[in-house]
This record gives sequence, structure tokens and C-alpha cells, in this order.
Amino acid sequence: MKIPPVKGTRDFYPSDMAVRNWIIDGWKRVSLRNGFEEYDGPIFEYLKMFQIKSGDEIVEQLFSLTDRGGRELALRPEITPTLARMVNQRISSLPKPIKWFSVPRLFRAERPQKGRLREFFQWNIDIIGEDDVLADAETIFCALDYLQEVGLTPDDIVVKISSRKMLAELLRTIGIAEDKLEDLYAVLDKRSKLPTDIFEQMLAESVTDESKCKKILKLMSIEFIKQIGSVVELTRQVKESVDELSRLFELLNVMGAGDYCIFDIGIVRGLAYYTGIVYEIYDKGSELRAIGGGGRYDNLLQLFGGPSIPATGFGIGDCVLAILLEEKGLIKPEPRQLDYFVAYVEEAYKEAAVKLTMKLRSAGWRTSFSYKSTKLSKQLKEASEQKAKKCIIIGEEFKNNELVIKDMATGQQELIKVDKFFADKHDPS
Amino acid sequence: MKIPPVKGTRDFYPSDMAVRNWIIDGWKRVSLRNGFEEYDGPIFEYLKMFQIKSGDEIVEQLFSLTDRGGRELALRPEITPTLARMVNQRISSLPKPIKWFSVPRLFRAERPQKGRLREFFQWNIDIIGEDDVLADAETIFCALDYLQEVGLTPDDIVVKISSRKMLAELLRTIGIAEDKLEDLYAVLDKRSKLPTDIFEQMLAESVTDESKCKKILKLMSIEFIKQIGSVVELTRQVKESVDELSRLFELLNVMGAGDYCIFDIGIVRGLAYYTGIVYEIYDKGSELRAIGGGGRYDNLLQLFGGPSIPATGFGIGDCVLAILLEEKGLIKPEPRQLDYFVAYVEEAYKEAAVKLTMKLRSAGWRTSFSYKSTKLSKQLKEASEQKAKKCIIIGEEFKNNELVIKDMATGQQELIKVDKFFADKHDPS
Repeated sequence: MKIPPVKGTRDFYPSDMAVRNWIIDGWKRVSLRNGFEEYDGPIFEYLKMFQIKSGDEIVEQLFSLTDRGGRELALRPEITPTLARMVNQRISSLPKPIKWFSVPRLFRAERPQKGRLREFFQWNIDIIGEDDVLADAETIFCALDYLQEVGLTPDDIVVKISSRKMLAELLRTIGIAEDKLEDLYAVLDKRSKLPTDIFEQMLAESVTDESKCKKILKLMSIEFIKQIGSVVELTRQVKESVDELSRLFELLNVMGAGDYCIFDIGIVRGLAYYTGIVYEIYDKGSELRAIGGGGRYDNLLQLFGGPSIPATGFGIGDCVLAILLEEKGLIKPEPRQLDYFVAYVEEAYKEAAVKLTMKLRSAGWRTSFSYKSTKLSKQLKEASEQKAKKCIIIGEEFKNNELVIKDMATGQQELIKVDKFFADKHDPS
Repeated sequence: MKIPPVKGTRDFYPSDMAVRNWIIDGWKRVSLRNGFEEYDGPIFEYLKMFQIKSGDEIVEQLFSLTDRGGRELALRPEITPTLARMVNQRISSLPKPIKWFSVPRLFRAERPQKGRLREFFQWNIDIIGEDDVLADAETIFCALDYLQEVGLTPDDIVVKISSRKMLAELLRTIGIAEDKLEDLYAVLDKRSKLPTDIFEQMLAESVTDESKCKKILKLMSIEFIKQIGSVVELTRQVKESVDELSRLFELLNVMGAGDYCIFDIGIVRGLAYYTGIVYEIYDKGSELRAIGGGGRYDNLLQLFGGPSIPATGFGIGDCVLAILLEEKGLIKPEPRQLDYFVAYVEEAYKEAAVKLTMKLRSAGWRTSFSYKSTKLSKQLKEASEQKAKKCIIIGEEFKNNELVIKDMATGQQELIKVDKFFADKHDPS
């Protein structure tokens, strides 16, 4: 009986797994050097956990399940609710700021498309307990520290940055009522994803006052922070949020990440819970979806029964990133390699080869041998196929406790006493 | 709104994550040095995938879900069906023997107990395409290579080994009908888990002929392979399977793993698909469940629509293992450590500290700084709490492009030019 894999999931054969590990190990290494500690939660949580944060899009895309006790559960579509739950559980004992990262496997029950699968990995970085915009800058730097390390330059990618706080103040100044803001964010977030006329029609439906509507359109066409004053009056609140955004760009310059970053008032982020700086990372060349995005969400922990505490963070998925890296020829997983391949000239030495192989493995060396008692030439071919650095040949010399060591790169052979061979060896790491 | 985690799942706070990573990294390192390549499949598959292999226990414990298209899916309770599917998909192009490992996250909808959770990790090793008992020996060696490395000795654990093939031949020789074998395996597997009288009653219900029943009981009381001939006639088939088992023990001795291994005719394994050598790993001291187990399953790939091809492998879960390692004081995760902590003597140098921190991170060093512009003594305390090896102090000297480097272990300080500091630095790895 042949059964296919489920659409939108991936089989990771060893060559695919090498790429997945290369990406995830890079995320982890960069997170650690940026001072973040790793955490993780369960693959499933109570369904209602994911209904607390608005973002209707996410709730619609949940894989839900019921356990034997009739409890409604769901596979996690994001890890932020779990993070909020975990931090709230230990809020008083955790030293602040909390700098945590995670690489959760996530699930969305949507139609698979290019760069969007039903099962994927996402790099998450969060700083909780620090309201300074320096924390926002640090998370953006951390994302770029990785993206730069794998070889993506400011010619390849851009971080588009704005401020939800500033946008809110601007819209208030224009005269948008407080209870209309949330719906309006969702409309404005669609701007770059829709044809201009359709977007403008949606906006007109959301903001019925024509003069307000025009002001918003003018605002959305701004290219530089300095232009804001020409469209909207710089109230104290507007000015404060503009200053914060300007300071973020200064800090990114100090950090050496400024070349990747631009202001883009069109970055709104769909989710309702963002409260400050917001950003999305895009490739410059092609038509891919966002590589990742994030921002400040100072009220989220409170939504999950915790205290009011500032927080900022981002998520970068593996699917779009892998497509971009593939396009640029930047995927460079560690090649599979053996330290030793132990060959034997005839069946009589096979047991000795097995013994030596296991001894080398226990000492930490990647070692293999051939199951089949074939000719030496065939074993050497196998060693070469498995990319062995050295081949140990067990033959007549073994009666005198000697081994032949062949360097597979140079072809050079040397004869060495078994005892000396082990005495000379250093730790493989 | 406060929502608890689902019963039987785990939150991995950084200290828990360090233990999880330490266990899983060890599994991966040992797998690689034993010549295995890593693979993985999706977290969920079609429900019917998991119904193909018998093992009713597993099917009852499935977390099932339905997608938008009404397809019945299930969270994987084991990875072997996925392995069979993946290998079958590429059976003709994969070089044999296939030596693969995986560390899947698995799910069982059962009542959580000590050492048994609803969500766990399992180390899987499989060799496909090799019928020599040497392959079985290699998998057992690989498990022990890890268990020995973490510090478990033959005084702590034991691998109990038998042969399903031999048991089948013995039961046939006693006169058990072919169609009764499968049920009987399930009964015999319960022997060590039930009180003697209850087990004997179950056996009597399964094997109604009293003399056959007695013979089976006598057989199950055998302690050494050599005693078999005194209970059952050594037919050619029995002798062949006994010889294979004896050869396995010889090979394990050659490999240096013999001290951990004993023959135990009571090892049957519940699952119906085992066809040869079977084994389970137990702790000697306490009353824990099996740490892991495995064996040969030569017909499994065929069940999943593939060819008839020999295969052998094992699974070791993380829950029982972690309990045992904890009991023995053998859990030793890598301590969290910083290479550098960058402190500043006053607010005016904070920007320079941020800049230097980011530069060090991009060069690969684990580096942190303090968000709060507190006194130097407080920053040094923070550096010490974060286990920084060195602290860089930015103060007056910075005007002359000099840094103070304080060794946190010795307390020694040196003054160094910024340029020289970076020129002297080696790669952190």
C-alpha cells in the first residue's frame, strides 16, 4: 500500500536535511552571539490560546484537534502566545530584560504556495522588559547579522521600517476615531499588495470623509520622515514618535546595519497588537513575499493574563529565505565527510576492521567500513564516495600490529604501529 | 486571560532547553560518527499510514486531525512508517545499505505517566538493505556508543537481546499454529510486566493445550542460549537462528560492547512486524520502563508498497533516558557563557559600547552590554552573572582609541589599542 505525503509538508532526505540544519544552525549561532537564550514550547496548545490575539487570518488557518478528554487543541501557527504564557508563568523570577530565541516548527492549514507551506520553521527573537528603542534596534541588527553572514548584501535585501505608534498619532491628528484605527491598519497593510485603484476604493469605504481620505493617501505617499510635517501638524505626540523612529535609524547606523534599512510608511503589519516600531524584510530583486518581520508589542503579555511589560521581536520563516538563498547561490551546507574509512584486504581481516572502526568511533572520529567483503579497490572507491579524508588498510602488516594509512587527497601511504596510531591521535573536535 | 499548557506537554525554559539540546546534540554527534545521515519527515501524515503496521496500542494513541479538505491526518506516534514511505519513494536511486538517523518529535494521546509524555523526542537509527547480523550489531553498538559516552556503565544499564526468528522457530517446533503466533507474541511480551499467576493465566487462555503451554513456560525460563536444546528439539531452522544470535554476541564482544549485553528470551517486542534480532535497553537499578529498543523488520517496506528489503533499527526516547541520567547525576549541559561583556563608565560612552558589541558579534563572539546606564560596578556584576570570560571597559582611555580588557577569572586588566585588539583576534570557533 503506497501512501503519499500530505500536500504542503516536506520530506527531508539527507541532502535536504543538510540544508535545513545549515539554516537553523546559523540562526542559533547568531542568536547566541547576540546574547539570546533558546526556549521552546509544545507543538500544540489549547485552541483558545490562539484566539486571544486578534489576527483573524491566523485563527482561520489553524489545524485543530480534539484529545480523548474532548479538549479543543491546535497545532501552533506561531510561538508568540506560548512565549507570553511561559514568561507570564515565571514573570517575577526571570531577570529582565528577557532575551530569548526559538526555532519552532509551525503549522498553517492554508493552500500551499511558493514560499508558503503548511509546515515550516520560523526563527523568533524577542526582548521583553525593555522599552528603549535600542531593543528594537538590537533585534533588527540580530536579523541582519545573520542575513549578512550568509552573504546577503544591501543590494539583495532591505528592511522597511515604520512605527505603528507614529501612524496611530498621525491618523488621530487627521481625525480618525479611536475605534476605527484597527480596521484601518488592516486596510493600509494591504496597500502594497493590491492594485492602486482597488486599494483606494477599500480605503474610501473605510474612511468615508473624503478630505480625511485624501490626507491619508498623501501621508502614505511620503518617502522621508522629514516630509511628515508637510502633511500633518506635528503635535507633541506625533513629534515624540517621529523622534523615536529617527533615533532607531541613528542606532542602526551606529550598529553598522544602516545600509540595509529604509523608512517606509506603508509598513503597518496586519496583526492588531503592534504598538511601536514595525518592520518587514524584503528581497530587492524578485517578487517574493516578506522574508520576515516584527516589531514592538507592549500590551501582549497583559492580554495573556500577565503584567503590562514592554516587548519587541521578529519572526523569519525558512521557506522564503531558502528560495532567496537558492536564487543567489548562497546555500552552503556542510559537506558530508568521514575522518576514516577502514578497508580490509581479505575476509580474514574483516573482524579486525570492525573492531578498529568501533574503537575510532568511540574516540570521536567519523568512521566507516564496508559490509561487503569485496576487493580492496572497491572498498577504496566506497571510501572515496563517502568523502573519507583517510583510508586505513588492514592487510598482511596487521600481523605485526601495523596499519597502512592512505591520505585520500594526496594518495600518500604510510605504515604505522597500531599503538602509535592511537597515541598520536588528538581529540577530533 | 490565563491559559495553562496542555497536560503531558513540556515548556522548555532556557535551562530545560539546554538539557534537551545536550541530549539531542549527543545523539546527533554519535550518529554521525557511526556513519549515519540525518533525515526527517512531516509532523503529520495521512491517518491510514499509521494503521498499516499492526501495533494496535499505537493506533489507539493517535492524535488525529482533519484538514479543510476533510482528509484524515494524524500526528506521528513513530517515524518508521515515514521512513518506509521515504525510502520506497527513492528505492532505486539510494545507494545501499542506507544508514539513516532521525530525532523526530513524536506524539501519543495517552495518559501522562513517569517517563511517558504525550509529546517527546526519539532517537532513531536504521540500516536498510543489509541482512547480515553485523548490521544489527552495529545499531546496538551505536546506541551503546552514546550511552557509554554520557557515563552509563554496565553496572547502570543492560541490553537484553533475543531473536523473534528463533522464538518463531521454537514455537513452531512446539506445535503452535502459524496463525496463532502473532497473538502469542503479544502475550509473551507481557511476561515481565505482569504478576506470574496473571501471565500464566493469559498464556493458558492463548494456548489451550496444557503440554504445549508447559513447554512454553519452560522455554521462557531459559537463561542461556545453550539451554535451548534441553527444552526443544534443535531442528535445522532452530539451529540457524540460534547460530545467528550467538554470532551477534560474538560481534558485540569484538566491538567492545559485550559487557552491556545479555541474552533474554523474554524480549519479544509488542509490535508484530519484527522478524529477527530484537532487544530492549533497561536500567539495572530502578523500576523505569525500557530506555529504548529495536530489532530487525525485514518485511516492513513491502507493507508500505515497496520491495522486500532487509532492515534493522532502534528507537530511544528522551523521557526515560533523562530520568535515569538525572538520577545518576550525569546531565551536563554546556554552561551558558559570554566571550565579552562591554561596559561603559558613563552614558557618553554607551554608543561606543553598542558599536563595539555589534562589531564583536558580527566577528563571531558572544557579546553583551547593559541597557541601563548604571554604575560600572553594577555592569561588572551583570557581566559576572552572565558568565562573561572577559569584560571590555570603555572609559577615558577610549579617547586615545584604547580599551581596558578585564579577565573575569583572574581579575587582571590590560590596556590595548582598538586596532590591535581586532587585529589580534582569532576566529572564535
